Order: sequence, then C-alpha cells, then structure tokens
Amino acid sequence: MPRSGGIASMMRLPVQENTDGLDVCFVGVPLDSGTSIKSGTRFGPRQIRQESCAIRSAHYDLGAVPFEDVQVADVGDVSMNIYNLPEAVKQIKAAYDKLISNGCVPLTMGGDHTITYPILQAMKDKHGPVGLILLDAHPDTQDTMLGASIAHGTPFRRAVEYGCLDCTRVVQIGLNGSVNSLDDYKWGLDQGFRVVTAKECWHKSLEPLMAEVRGMMGQGPVYISFDIDALDPSYAPGTGGPEIGGLTTCQALEVLRGAADLNIVGCDVVEVSPPYDMAGTTAMTAANLLFEMLCILPGIKRRH
Amino acid sequence: MPRSGGIASMMRLPVQENTDGLDVCFVGVPLDSGTSIKSGTRFGPRQIRQESCAIRSAHYDLGAVPFEDVQVADVGDVSMNIYNLPEAVKQIKAAYDKLISNGCVPLTMGGDHTITYPILQAMKDKHGPVGLILLDAHPDTQDTMLGASIAHGTPFRRAVEYGCLDCTRVVQIGLNGSVNSLDDYKWGLDQGFRVVTAKECWHKSLEPLMAEVRGMMGQGPVYISFDIDALDPSYAPGTGGPEIGGLTTCQALEVLRGAADLNIVGCDVVEVSPPYDMAGTTAMTAANLLFEMLCILPGIKRRH
Amino acid sequence: MPRSGGIASMMRLPVQENTDGLDVCFVGVPLDSGTSIKSGTRFGPRQIRQESCAIRSAHYDLGAVPFEDVQVADVGDVSMNIYNLPEAVKQIKAAYDKLISNGCVPLTMGGDHTITYPILQAMKDKHGPVGLILLDAHPDTQDTMLGASIAHGTPFRRAVEYGCLDCTRVVQIGLNGSVNSLDDYKWGLDQGFRVVTAKECWHKSLEPLMAEVRGMMGQGPVYISFDIDALDPSYAPGTGGPEIGGLTTCQALEVLRGAADLNIVGCDVVEVSPPYDMAGTTAMTAANLLFEMLCILPGIKRRH
Amino acid sequence: MPRSGGIASMMRLPVQENTDGLDVCFVGVPLDSGTSIKSGTRFGPRQIRQESCAIRSAHYDLGAVPFEDVQVADVGDVSMNIYNLPEAVKQIKAAYDKLISNGCVPLTMGGDHTITYPILQAMKDKHGPVGLILLDAHPDTQDTMLGASIAHGTPFRRAVEYGCLDCTRVVQIGLNGSVNSLDDYKWGLDQGFRVVTAKECWHKSLEPLMAEVRGMMGQGPVYISFDIDALDPSYAPGTGGPEIGGLTTCQALEVLRGAADLNIVGCDVVEVSPPYDMAGTTAMTAANLLFEMLCILPGIKRRH
Amino acid sequence: MPRSGGIASMMRLPVQENTDGLDVCFVGVPLDSGTSIKSGTRFGPRQIRQESCAIRSAHYDLGAVPFEDVQVADVGDVSMNIYNLPEAVKQIKAAYDKLISNGCVPLTMGGDHTITYPILQAMKDKHGPVGLILLDAHPDTQDTMLGASIAHGTPFRRAVEYGCLDCTRVVQIGLNGSVNSLDDYKWGLDQGFRVVTAKECWHKSLEPLMAEVRGMMGQGPVYISFDIDALDPSYAPGTGGPEIGGLTTCQALEVLRGAADLNIVGCDVVEVSPPYDMAGTTAMTAANLLFEMLCILPGIKRRH
Amino acid sequence: MPRSGGIASMMRLPVQENTDGLDVCFVGVPLDSGTSIKSGTRFGPRQIRQESCAIRSAHYDLGAVPFEDVQVADVGDVSMNIYNLPEAVKQIKAAYDKLISNGCVPLTMGGDHTITYPILQAMKDKHGPVGLILLDAHPDTQDTMLGASIAHGTPFRRAVEYGCLDCTRVVQIGLNGSVNSLDDYKWGLDQGFRVVTAKECWHKSLEPLMAEVRGMMGQGPVYISFDIDALDPSYAPGTGGPEIGGLTTCQALEVLRGAADLNIVGCDVVEVSPPYDMAGTTAMTAANLLFEMLCILPGIKRRH
Repeated sequence: MPRSGGIASMMRLPVQENTDGLDVCFVGVPLDSGTSIKSGTRFGPRQIRQESCAIRSAHYDLGAVPFEDVQVADVGDVSMNIYNLPEAVKQIKAAYDKLISNGCVPLTMGGDHTITYPILQAMKDKHGPVGLILLDAHPDTQDTMLGASIAHGTPFRRAVEYGCLDCTRVVQIGLNGSVNSLDDYKWGLDQGFRVVTAKECWHKSLEPLMAEVRGMMGQGPVYISFDIDALDPSYAPGTGGPEIGGLTTCQALEVLRGAADLNIVGCDVVEVSPPYDMAGTTAMTAANLLFEMLCILPGIKRRH
Repeated sequence: MPRSGGIASMMRLPVQENTDGLDVCFVGVPLDSGTSIKSGTRFGPRQIRQESCAIRSAHYDLGAVPFEDVQVADVGDVSMNIYNLPEAVKQIKAAYDKLISNGCVPLTMGGDHTITYPILQAMKDKHGPVGLILLDAHPDTQDTMLGASIAHGTPFRRAVEYGCLDCTRVVQIGLNGSVNSLDDYKWGLDQGFRVVTAKECWHKSLEPLMAEVRGMMGQGPVYISFDIDALDPSYAPGTGGPEIGGLTTCQALEVLRGAADLNIVGCDVVEVSPPYDMAGTTAMTAANLLFEMLCILPGIKRRH
Repeated sequence: MPRSGGIASMMRLPVQENTDGLDVCFVGVPLDSGTSIKSGTRFGPRQIRQESCAIRSAHYDLGAVPFEDVQVADVGDVSMNIYNLPEAVKQIKAAYDKLISNGCVPLTMGGDHTITYPILQAMKDKHGPVGLILLDAHPDTQDTMLGASIAHGTPFRRAVEYGCLDCTRVVQIGLNGSVNSLDDYKWGLDQGFRVVTAKECWHKSLEPLMAEVRGMMGQGPVYISFDIDALDPSYAPGTGGPEIGGLTTCQALEVLRGAADLNIVGCDVVEVSPPYDMAGTTAMTAANLLFEMLCILPGIKRRH
Repeated sequence: MPRSGGIASMMRLPVQENTDGLDVCFVGVPLDSGTSIKSGTRFGPRQIRQESCAIRSAHYDLGAVPFEDVQVADVGDVSMNIYNLPEAVKQIKAAYDKLISNGCVPLTMGGDHTITYPILQAMKDKHGPVGLILLDAHPDTQDTMLGASIAHGTPFRRAVEYGCLDCTRVVQIGLNGSVNSLDDYKWGLDQGFRVVTAKECWHKSLEPLMAEVRGMMGQGPVYISFDIDALDPSYAPGTGGPEIGGLTTCQALEVLRGAADLNIVGCDVVEVSPPYDMAGTTAMTAANLLFEMLCILPGIKRRH
Repeated sequence: MPRSGGIASMMRLPVQENTDGLDVCFVGVPLDSGTSIKSGTRFGPRQIRQESCAIRSAHYDLGAVPFEDVQVADVGDVSMNIYNLPEAVKQIKAAYDKLISNGCVPLTMGGDHTITYPILQAMKDKHGPVGLILLDAHPDTQDTMLGASIAHGTPFRRAVEYGCLDCTRVVQIGLNGSVNSLDDYKWGLDQGFRVVTAKECWHKSLEPLMAEVRGMMGQGPVYISFDIDALDPSYAPGTGGPEIGGLTTCQALEVLRGAADLNIVGCDVVEVSPPYDMAGTTAMTAANLLFEMLCILPGIKRRH
Repeated sequence: MPRSGGIASMMRLPVQENTDGLDVCFVGVPLDSGTSIKSGTRFGPRQIRQESCAIRSAHYDLGAVPFEDVQVADVGDVSMNIYNLPEAVKQIKAAYDKLISNGCVPLTMGGDHTITYPILQAMKDKHGPVGLILLDAHPDTQDTMLGASIAHGTPFRRAVEYGCLDCTRVVQIGLNGSVNSLDDYKWGLDQGFRVVTAKECWHKSLEPLMAEVRGMMGQGPVYISFDIDALDPSYAPGTGGPEIGGLTTCQALEVLRGAADLNIVGCDVVEVSPPYDMAGTTAMTAANLLFEMLCILPGIKRRH
C-alpha cells in the first residue's frame, strides 16, 4: 500500500475498540474546550494519525523494532462532552480506567493539556502516585483560569490535589515565555518539583539532565507528558500558545531517549493544533515523538 | 492614515467602553466554546475588524452615508467565561442589557451562533418578542447537542422557550446540507416559522422573497442574524460547518437591502472562523455585511 | 463522539476489509502518477474521509435516509504500484472485480482520473457495457499523453477500446477550458457521446438536461464519474487542472439528483488534490457529492 | 516537456527582448507602489506566467488557434523605479512607446492599476484617443490619494486629462463596493462614460450589454483593462481590494468574447496579488483571461 | 476577557492619541514603500498587535514586572504619505519629534527599515548622536537603491550623514546572506562600526559579545533596531528578504537581555511581513521581542 | 529591474538552450514520479528559480564573485516522460551526456531524488567513478520500492551497480528518522561508504568532519547531492519526507564551504516540494544552497 493510502490509523496500525490483548495502545482525546488562546487541538489526533503514515517500523539510534516486542494497536478516540469540561474530565477518567485495566500502556494524542489531569487520575488509581516528566513551556499549575478550575492551565495543580503525583519525582522541562506573575513557577517548586527553564537548556545537550532525571525517577512508575509548545515555534508552529526560545527537537529526543530505562506507564503529546500547522510539520513532529515514546517503553529490546 | 494603519477597530471607528451617546454600536463576542465541528470563531471579531479597514463610508446602491445620520462607535468585546457555556450565556445577556438600555442598536460580530440566544434574551426584555430574519445553513433548533442544551445548534429553540421570538414573524433563509433527521426543520415549522431552503433559492433573485418578508415583519421589532455558513463555501470558506450549494453574496445583499424599511433592533454576523479563512475573504465578507446592516437601520437616509 | 474525533473513515462508517454483506462501499484509490499538471490527488481519499466527518445521515431534499435502506461500509483503499501505471491499472481492475463480485456498488474516492479506466473494465466484466454520466472539464479521450497510453487524459478512449461503454448512452457534461486542438471533443462525438460544454450550462438550471439524460440512459446500467475540475475553481480550487467558467455546485447537485431514478452501478469523485486545497473546501465538497451519490442509488427510498 | 517544467514564460512562449517581428506580445509591469490597501501585485507577472503553463493552444468556443495566425512572444518585464511613482510612470510610458512602435499589440500583466495610465499615454501617442472597456470594482477616477496624483485609484482621471480616452467610447463594467462619497461615479459620468454597476449585472448574461458596447465602440481603437477585483472574491481572492457581489468569471468571459469584433490595440490584467492567492487560482484566472484576450485580437480567425 | 477578545492594541494596553503622561509607548509605522523584494510590512503593526494578546505581564528571567514600574500605552500608528518616500520620512520625523518631546521612549513596530532613519533623526535632535545596536542580516548602508536615496537599504548611511549616530558606538550583529559586492560591509567599517556576521555567531552564546557591547556603549544614549530578518528564516519566515544561516531567537534574547543596563532611548522591530507569515509566528516573535525591549528599559526593576 | 520582475530564470541569469560556451549551468529536472510519500517536487525547479531573485552576486564569507570567474547560464529544464520512470531515467541520462560533453558543470534543481541516478551515470561516463558527498535524511540505497527498481529510494544502489561511484570516496551525512529495518544503513557501509547520522551532528560544527571528508575525497572528481530533507523541517518544511532532528542550515553551509577545495564535477539540490512550502522558505533555501555550490566550484577565486 502506498504511504498515502489506507485508513489513517496511527502508523497504519490495526484499529480495535478496546485494549484487549494489547501491551500498548495509541489513543486520541479530541478535546480543545480547555484552551485559552488559539484553539483547534480537537483535530490533533486525526492530523497526527494522518502524518504518521510516513513513520517506518524500526528505530536506528535505539536499536528498537517495537512491533516485534509488544502488541500495539490504535484504539481510536475517547468520546466526551466537549461543552462541559468537568463532565468531560470524568468521562476521560472512566475511559482510561478501562483502557489501562489490563496493564496496557496508553500513548495519548491530544487534545489540549486539560486531558492529562483525568489520565493521571486513572494512572494513580492503577499504579499509585506516579513520577512525571513534563515537557512544557508553561507550568500548568494555575489554580483557576477565568474562574474555571478545569482548563488547560491547571491540570498539574489538580493532579497534585488528587494525589496523582509523587512530587519528589516530578520534573518540568522547558518552562518559558512571559509569565502572569514572577511566582508562576513557585507553586510547583513548593511541591518539590524540579524545574528546568528553557533558558537553562540553551546551547546544551540535555543528556546530563536526563542522567539526573533517571536517578530521580528510580524504578517507580513514570508518566511522560509532552506539550508540543515546549518546542520552539520553529519546530512546532501549530499550537495555541507558542513561546520563543524553546527547546529544539534534538533536545526533545535526548529527553525521551534519556528516559529509556524507566518504568513508563503512559505518555502523551498534547496541544497540536492543525489549523495553525500549515504544512503539517507540527503533527508530523508529534507523530514521531509518539513513535519515540513507543520505542522507550518497558519491554522494547535494544538490538544493537 | 493609510488603510493598513491605525488601531484595528471596526471600520477604524472610535472605540468607547459603553454605548453612551450612541445610536448604533459594533460589538464583538469572541466565544467559540459552542461549536461542534471546526472551531476558531473566537478570533472572528478581531479578524472582521482587521478586514473592515477597506470599507469606505458611503453606500452607492442604497444612497446611504450612515455616519452622517447616526452616532456609531466600536464598543469592543463582551467578556465572558469561555469554559462554562451556561455562565457565558448569562454574562452575554447582562452585557447586552446594558448595551441596549439606551436604545442603542447593536451590530454584533461573533463568535459562534450560541451567542444569539442571550442577545435575543436581551432584545426581548427591551423590546418584547421580536421578528427574526435568519440566514443560516442550519435551523439551529436542536434540543441538545451531545447532551448540552446550550451550544451553537440550539439557540433558536432556547430563544423560543424564553419567549424571545414572535414566531409568526420568523423566517429562516438558506437551510441547506445533510440533516440529522428528515424532521430537522419540522420543529421550526411547527412554531410557525417560514422556512426557505437554499435549494429554493438556486438561480433566483431573492427580491420577491423579501417583499413577502417585509409584509410578514410589519412594523414590529426585527432582529437579523446572519450565520456566515448560509453563504456558499466559495464565498465563505472560513467557517466551521460549511455546506455546498448555499446562497450567493448577491442573494445575501438582496436579503439585507430588502429589509431596509423594517424596524431593526439588532443584527449579528456569526461563525466566521479566521484559522480556516486563509486569504481573509470570509472576514472581509462579514465586515461588508455588517456595513450593509448599518446602512439599512432606521434613521439612515436614502440620498438618491 | 465529537465530530472532530474518531478514526477518519468515510462518514465515520465502520471499516471492513472486503465487501461481504455490503450493498454499497466507499473505497479509495490513492494514485496520482497519471496527472499532467499539479499532483497531490494521492491524498484525496484521506482528505475526503477527513472532511466527511461533518456529514449527517439524512438528505432533506431527496427525503433519503440511506443507512436505513442499504448496508454501507468503508473498505479502505486499493493498493497498487504507483511507479508503474500499466501495472497499477491491472491491480485496480483486479481489486474492483473482487469488490463488486457480490453486486456491491462502489463509491470511489480518487486519485486521478486514470483510475476510472480499470474501474470501468471491472464494471463491463460484471454488468456489460455501461452508460456513463461524466462531469469533467476535459474529455479525457486523448490517445496518449507524452507518449503514454495510460494517464489521466486517456481513460475514456481506453474504456471505449475495451468495450466498457455503451457509446449511445454516454454524456459528458462541463467540457471547458483551452484545448489542445479544435478537434478535442470530436473523438467522443464520433463515438456517439452527447457533449455538453460548460458554456452551454451558464446561467441555467440543469434539470432540463437531466430529463434528457434520463431518457437516454433508460434502464441499463449507468456509471457516474465526477472529475472535481468540472466545478468552477471557486468551488473546487484543490485540483490539478482547474478551468475558469465551470459548473456551479448547484448544477452539480441538479445533475446528481437528476440521475436518481437510474440503474447506477458505480460512482466516483476524482482529482481532489489536498495540497492545493488550503481550507479543505474541495475535499468537503467531494465528500458531500459522494453522499449525494449514495442517496440516489437504487434501493434508497424517498420518504417525502 | 511536462507542463510543470521549463522556464516560466507566459504560456511557455519564446522570450525575446523587444517586439521585433511580433504582432502581439505578453509583457509584465511588476509595480505595486501605487496600491492603497493590500500590496503584493509586484509578483503578479511572475505568478501569472507560472500558472499559465496549464493553458493549451486552442480556444474551442471561439474556434481560435491564435499561434497559427499571429506572431506572439513574451518580452519580459518593464523596468522602473519602484520608489518614485511619477518617475515610474515616465519609464513605463517610454517602454511602451518602444514596444508598440511597430504596431505590436501588448497584453500586459500587472502590477497595480497605476500602470494603465502610462500604457494609455503610449496608446494615445500611437493611435490617438482610444475607446476603453474597463472591468473594475472601482472607477479609479479619483483626483488624488493621500495627496498623490499618481496612484492606483487615479489612472483614468489622469488618462482623460492627458487626452488618452475618447470619452464617448468608455464603458466601466462592474463598479461595486462601498464608496468614498455618493459622487464617486459622477466624474466619469460627467465625462460621458457608460457606467454599469456590478449590481446591474446580477443574475444576468452580459451578452446584451456587449451588443450595446460593440455599437458604442465602432471601428475605432479600443483598449481593454481588466482589474481582477471586478471579479467576485470567490473567483479572485488574490487581490488588494476585493469587493463582494462582483462579476462572475462567466460574465467576464462574455464581456471579452463580446469584444471579439473590435479593433483592439492593447489589453491588460492588473491587481493580481500572489501573497493573497493561496492556491494560485487568481493568477490562473488572470492567465486564462489573457489567453481570451489574445484570442479576440484582430487577425485571429474563427475556425468554426 | 479571553485572550482572543478585545480591541487589538499592543498587549491589550490602553490606547491614547499622544504620549502625555507616558514613560514608554508602543507605536506603529505601517509603511512598506521602501521594500525591494517582498512587500507586506505595512500590515506589520496590526499583526504584531494581534499576536501580542498572548503575552503575559511579567518576565521571569529578568525578574521584571514592567507595568508596575513605568507608564505604558499604545499610541496607535504614525500617518504618512505612502506614495512619496521622502515626504513620508519627513512626516515620520515630525511625528517622533512630538512623541518623544516629553522623554517618552518609543518602542516601534514597522514597517520596513526605511522608518528607522527618521526615527534616528528625531532621536538625534532630542538626545544628540546615539549609539546603535542593530540586529540585521543586511548592513542597510547602501547609498541608493535603484537610484533612490530613501529606501529600506539605505537608512544607516542617511543616519550617519545626518549625524544621528555616534559611530564609535555602533554595532551591527547578524550580517548575512549574499552581497552586492565584497565591499558591502566596508562603508560601515570605515565609519568605525563594529561588525559581527551571522557566521561568527554560529554555535555560540552571544553573552560574551554583549559584555563587549556594554563596554562599548557606556552610559550614552542607545537605540536598538531589530530587523526581523536577522533571525534565521526558521524563526521568522514572514519577512521580505530572509537569509539562511541567521541568528537563533535564543541569541536574539541574549542580545536584548545583554543590553539591560544601558541607557536605551528607543527601540524598533521592523520588516515583519504578515502576508508571508502563514501561522503568525513571525509577528508573534516580534511581539515578544518588543516585550523583551520593554523589560530592559531604564526604570524597570529586577525583582529577583 | 526590481527583484520581483523579469523572467524567472535562476538568479535572473540569461537562458540558453544548451551549454555551449558555459563553464557552469543551472538546469532543472521537474520529475516527481519517483516519490513515495508527498509529491510536488515537479514544481521544484520553477519555485527555486522564483525565489532565487533575491540572491545577490557575491559571497562575503568565501570572498567569491563567481560571475566574474566563470561563464554561467540557466539552460532550462530536461524533458522526460513522467509516466514511465525507466524511460525517464534514460532520457535524463541522455540529456546530461549532452550538457556535460564540453566539461560544463551542472548545478541541478530537482525533482525527486530518482534523478540523481541518471545524472551520476552521465558523470561516470564522462569522468569515471566519482566521489559522492550526500546530504540526506535517508540512505536511498533500497533495492526496490513497492517492487520498482527505479524510484526515489533507490538511486545510490543503482548508481553503485552501474559503477558510478568510487565507494571509498562516498560520505552520507545526515541519515535520520525511523528506518524500515535496523540494516537500512548496512548496504552502504558494506560498500565502504562513510556514514554520519544526524544524531552524530547534534550540537556540533561540521568543520572537523569536512576536514576528514576533504582527505577522503582527494583530487578525484566529486559529486555533491543535497536532498533538502537532510535539513531539519524547521528549515525545510517543503519536502515530501521530512525527519525531525535534522541538520541545521549552518551545518549545511559548513559542509558545502568545507568542500571548497575539491574537484567538483556536479551538484544537485533535490526534493523541494513547493505545495508544502507555504512561505517559499524551502525553495529560497535551495536557491541559496545552489549559489553556495556555485561559489565553491573549481575556478572560483577567493578574493579575501
């Protein structure tokens, strides 16, 4: 089949309705009701799938051939009420409870960052509090946005309140851009988060940072959340709140590959907004980041 | 000042915070939380203002020079909670109560069609039940969407329930596209709405229709709501739910100019979605439709 | 499920691998190796599926609710060698032989117009020579293009040579644009084709034409091929060889609805090129045309 | 040669430096310093040439095969000082004096409408006052723009002052859009121009109008100037000052073909702005209009 | 107010007509008549304002909360004759004389680089010869362009001639791209400018350079001019003359933050061309650079 | 002549039909029938020429003024049968045999990478086996693609089989992205190719690598092939198979300038796909890379 053909499932994998028999699933959450600036991420899952047709099945640098080691499929999208955020959060939580009940590792395509809150709730209920590697230009630890407690700027404060996170094992990488107040990062720091601003990453390999992160994460369960706006807009223009001076994709790959020995229980890539992604490069990048995430999961062998 | 310059207010009019001293105001409602397919109309008011810089001050066919006859300004945008639709509806209602308290006629830039419901509430409280000229590809009379009673497919059912509309003076022009059920237009018909499908308009001038509509509307207060998706996508690609075989802009102008003798108390143009409006033509069209609306208001003289 | 969500199958229908149990199937042929000017139609099937998410399940003007009357699914795309056109033609022919072996009616998403030749071969082998309603700006009856006998300008000459067409029941509607020679339409006329240029359609309803066409087609099997470039570029910019002064979508709908009583055995919409379809309106139009085709098939009841 | 290949001359014609031996030339004037709203027409000639590669050599409706009847080439672009409009006008005038000295008919690609003034000066010096068929949304008869006498809103007032026009043989077709004053069309009317607004053209064939125009033009020399903004923005989004409710391309073709028996001494298509012409359809339309102009020139035979 | 709402003033600041009571103003100069390749910068001020809605009020890395320290507003755009460059220069000069008469620091949004010449004239008349930190791919020290002395390639030669610059305190950072002659940088070097090519910046932090620059600038008045084409096109595609191998945004931020202790009397960001800035990232970058400039002005405290 | 004007030849050079009297020629091969994912490179030559209008005549960093040292022209495009890849390869080979028969060095604009195979065949027949500097994200050494031996993923395997390459003098720089198998690079390594992955280049100057490459290449003939997808998508979004984490343009310039002392017999830039190159930056980059290639050719003096 030419790469332009076939039903646009993630990486042209088989589609199934649930995670029966799966070690890993790709799943979409097409919600953008929580965005504050530019919207459009509701089409993120579709566009990421579309662009994923170009991805081949092996990873040279990691020596990984994931489809030989684990059972993977695309389980489609989670359904939810896009007009009612608190209800949507409950619906997503319920859907993930079911998806991961058999231990399946979900690789999620957002949607805006709101969705990571209910995913982390499900993670916590399954695995206990998890470590978190967050790549993001924004801390997303606001208490409320325009008065709402559920929105794309609040998921990690809500997650802490719900007990989802082991706060000694949380790292936020790539914080960047103008802030609402000089205290914007303080709430996370007060919880014990390790905070790494984008500026601290300029002109540098992030391999040393990841050595530190691996030590910090230990053998406990780890969740990786990748807000595409952690990347500089030159790499990821198609997002709602881009910030200049962000991470490079090389650095992003160093972070993900540097997490290869961890006990990863779930990952997401969020905030890809196709209407602002004229040539599809942001969705293409997201598709590749998800493939990278697949290749570092427990159970994937390194063949060279 | 070159037309590309100056603060982008509607038609480069003065900006003021309220409607004191105004006969007519332009006002935006940057809400798109009620959309069901493609979003982005939250940027409608800004983009319409941007494109409006090309509009000149007189209307040749109508013989109108509106700024000589009425006091007009841009009063900016209504603020609301974009994360909570029922609350947003209340906030918009309250804002319009205030805007029109002195009899000022609001010309509104949406935003998705959800916003017409609270505007009509304010109209009703000020003027009593109003007649309605609706240009729209969709009847927007659903009871709920994905379980929500407030969304962009429900405003006219809600408006009827609230008593906003004089159902004997409601005309829906341009209904078009696939339907959820063959009964989609029935609810309106049952209320007494006059329904004119797009197909009934093909290859025709709408001047005869408007003669009928003028008779129907009489001297009572009339509101005009223009969902840009009433226009064929060739004229208005930048909207969330385009339908092929729609009205032409000539027909739209015939409808608006045909309403020139009516007692118009408010107008809106909604569902302009800038991210899908690559060359700005949809917003440019909306800006011109709003200028047409201004030129047919009571108090505007016909000079030839 | 929000309309932006779910695996992007045509109209969000179930996907199955073959046509077992189906009356009608949607199927894609992602081939663009036969194009002569702008390419990109290899992504036509994907983009049409993407845009089809907005289509609802009933057709008001026809009174049709097709999914209640016939069994329909999306059977994905045909696979073929995009580097070898003669071989690709054979592979497509073989695939359609199988798809229609049980009488299933295929509604095809192209791909460039080359693909209609092997589809017609399969039609002929199943149904005998068929009548043809072709909407196209170009006759596509060249003998060769740059020396090649298989390309997107030759399918109907090849089809006649193979005996696919009942030449007394062929109508070409919308011929338009500059020509290679003043004899470009002559070959078809010599075979007995009815030729209707775009110019003959200007400012007119095509309902009278379709009355004539229905008489011409009688009760024999009919195939409908819709090259999207039959439409004026204002409606369908996203195609490789647009010609100004083309058909309107209203006229296209009149043609399709005018074919509602015929014995239709297959339909296609070809030449949609997503890279030139900035806002997706061409693919959206194609998706709607395919829904119209579904609603006029034998077995679909008219409910009002 | 594939149509995508070869040096992008107009219609892939030979390029030569002057008009020696030519009956007709295509020539570009890449000037946009005279625009008032959106600029970008400086790239008009290049983009029109680019899109012209799709045009074939014969015209079916007119029965014309122009390259068999007249000698045509692309003579490239006129050079001028883009930073000084009055000087640029002089340079263009001088260039056209030379181009047409041997009687060659220039088919010009703009550039903004400023350029028609010096072209008409050259026409007058060669042929005496000419008749003018102007397709334009705007009369372009302002006295000054922001104080400047040379700009794209003034060419026809300047042309009258210079004596270029036989004012009894001037028709302005397609006037449209908001106006600076209700007297905007009066200056032309006072000179004796025939004025046809876009509104007068709605829902109509323009063949009757052209019968009148042919009578008006008689056997005297005629110049045709086509501002692409005469077309509705659905056909020509890529221009600096689009106006809704404009002419259709069918009507434009009726106008040009209706001028086929006249003594045409020059033509232009101006105001094509590639940066606002996302899919190239405006430039493609302009290229086709120029081919239509070529096919109606004196000396081109009608073969059927 | 949602960030997508409200009149699009710079950073949604209050708009006022003059600088009364202001320490700092944002001001636009929507002129692009001086460009030589791609135009469109006349819409720069509007688009920068549009994108600025995403900027928050505090600067984490600098510890700055500028609106607590200085009085800032948007004073709209300077009006000028876009058809006459020498006159436009005079009008801009006069406007800036007035804007800065009370010591207000102007942060200017261009417009093409021509505008920096009259701004520097006003600076000189107010402050005497100023130091200059120029970020630009081109030296802009040509004597004439196509014979014109006022154009976007000549402002710094004109500024030196007028006595605007203290040539011992001028640094040009980021010179890049092909040159008209190997002597292109020589004129500046001969005046005593410090020249740093883009190539000298590859793979490096620019903090050491800025230590040198701070020494060079001393306590005298300094003007910062940022031509967006100093940035690599991956960061700033929306400009008329991009050059590959340019500065990164990280480096740009290092330059601006490295100027934090200087006596800055004015800044500009020029050459943002919205028609070539498909996703708005160039204007978004410009908006952020202007916020950075605001945060380094004299009087802004560093709070951590 | 303004840079936006004139026939769009490469760098606005004279156009001639053959290489008589030329030392160097620019030539296009508008073929994209060999692409596997996104197509469109058939318009590469035209778009590169279009964007090349901004390039000036001298190279500051190299001290080169190439047009003073060598005779260069644009010889247009090679014609070939785009519907038959094996035949197209033969036609390209024949065309290059003729182009280089007088020793002229061809600088080629693709087209997809298929074209480098016949070019290398011609090189071999003229110069014997050549060294190769390949910048590419993909090794392009597959045996077949979908069964075809001629396609854009196979040129270098075919070239080795034909004896075109001196395998001890082949370096592949920038290999990147997911792979079909962990052995994808092995075939090249087995031939003796030097392989440098993109990852090995992260955070580094490539000047040391080029010192090694110069040693490896010695004085023998060298061909440089630059697949634009070697660059990170942030620099070159307009290509059919982009891979994240690619080379920077700075690194690309280091590679090319590092090849300045070699015996270069030909160069190409391939895989530029204009339909995916929204703002033209990829084509602009390609045009600049071709200028860099011109400036490093034998015979070009270094003037400082």
